[in-house]
Amino acid sequence: MTPTELRAQIARQMFDKPTAGYCNGYVQANLVVLPKTHAADFERFCRANPKPCPLLEMVGPGTAKTSKLAPGADLTDTLPRYRVWRDGHNEQEVADIKPFYTPDMVFFLLGCSFSFEEALVKAGIRLRHVDQAKNVSMYRTNLPLVGVGPFQGEMVVSMRPIHRSQVAQACIITGRYPEVHGEPVHVGYPEMIGITDLAKPDYGDPVEIMADEIPVFWACGVTPQNVLVNARLPMAITHAPGYMFVSDIKNEAYAV
Amino acid sequence: MTPTELRAQIARQMFDKPTAGYCNGYVQANLVVLPKTHAADFERFCRANPKPCPLLEMVGPGTAKTSKLAPGADLTDTLPRYRVWRDGHNEQEVADIKPFYTPDMVFFLLGCSFSFEEALVKAGIRLRHVDQAKNVSMYRTNLPLVGVGPFQGEMVVSMRPIHRSQVAQACIITGRYPEVHGEPVHVGYPEMIGITDLAKPDYGDPVEIMADEIPVFWACGVTPQNVLVNARLPMAITHAPGYMFVSDIKNEAYAV
Repeated sequence: MTPTELRAQIARQMFDKPTAGYCNGYVQANLVVLPKTHAADFERFCRANPKPCPLLEMVGPGTAKTSKLAPGADLTDTLPRYRVWRDGHNEQEVADIKPFYTPDMVFFLLGCSFSFEEALVKAGIRLRHVDQAKNVSMYRTNLPLVGVGPFQGEMVVSMRPIHRSQVAQACIITGRYPEVHGEPVHVGYPEMIGITDLAKPDYGDPVEIMADEIPVFWACGVTPQNVLVNARLPMAITHAPGYMFVSDIKNEAYAV
Repeated sequence: MTPTELRAQIARQMFDKPTAGYCNGYVQANLVVLPKTHAADFERFCRANPKPCPLLEMVGPGTAKTSKLAPGADLTDTLPRYRVWRDGHNEQEVADIKPFYTPDMVFFLLGCSFSFEEALVKAGIRLRHVDQAKNVSMYRTNLPLVGVGPFQGEMVVSMRPIHRSQVAQACIITGRYPEVHGEPVHVGYPEMIGITDLAKPDYGDPVEIMADEIPVFWACGVTPQNVLVNARLPMAITHAPGYMFVSDIKNEAYAV
């Protein structure tokens, strides 16, 4: 399935699954939609926290169509699932946001770690959430962010169990992709970054960790959702964790 | 101090310390000296286990002078401390091996992780054993080697405590130096590789590990000494752990 075909299925509401493992080779992106009044602060917040919030493209106000990641794709119905936030609460999850769209909205597309998973798999590193068709495990941490205006809080991370003999290789491989979170922010010892129970992720699905595996943690584009809880904006929209925008850009375009 | 000056001090027996932190920027090497009868097996053993035993140069039989790592340097008195092995026992440590030298000896110079420490320090990664002028901590593990002839056993690793926020960077940086052990073989959780007490290294000095640090393990050129215990050869010579041969080759010559 090409990204164009996947986005068409999504727009017809025929695809409602996490996008990890689909359209291998193409960059996937997190979405944050804010009214124009908060856009400048949020852009500065992303620039100040590039590891969890690598800004790939800004769209609008006045349009919901990307020009860089997938020219012409409409961001109001080409992600499988959205979250609508009011006053810091995730009020509902919806399949398209056309009913909520207003022309003052600005769309932020942020890099996603699914983009480097292809490179890990190519190097022989198995990914359990992909093998088991689950959503990746994501956790709130105590890693502080650089706050800007109403946007304050701590980093969210994704976790992948990696065989102990492949941990260093996973760091090296993902380090080649700085625009999609790059190398891990933490390796092993979840309690050191404020995670108390790996079996209970804050977002996504739990996965088993085998005796010869080490939990490895990457900065995650769900971080803004953690921050939105604190910001309590009257209105915001994001993707649902794991249900990403799949672009037309090849992952290798972001490799260094 | 240049490598030439350091080797001259050593030859005059005016320097008897671990060489970590000296002649920054220059490749340091492990030494194994064997009679010619065992040289072919040991060379194959090194080729089969390139991570702990990266073969940089072979010297002899018939000469003890290097031609590649430090042209003209005499390997019988330019390392600060040697170990003389008989029947698998480390019989004595000596400052030069001229009394033991016979023309049938072959000298193997193997890459050493001290060579990438300069790059770690340049990236802002502190190394406690260097700061405290100690020998690096080294441990026997349960990581199996590929055996060749009498050379059989498990890998020895060096350990450096790294701040949790710099672990991935340490993997990336040292991964650029595959000829001097490259990226770590293990990160965190010492018990997973058979190390029961980090405070009691099998070679070198113990160093403290702070609450925000993770023990990171690299393959170590002391591995052959572990293997010599099993091989029980009538006669062998090695460097003493941490007391390396300092070459005239710049570390960057081995960076990829």
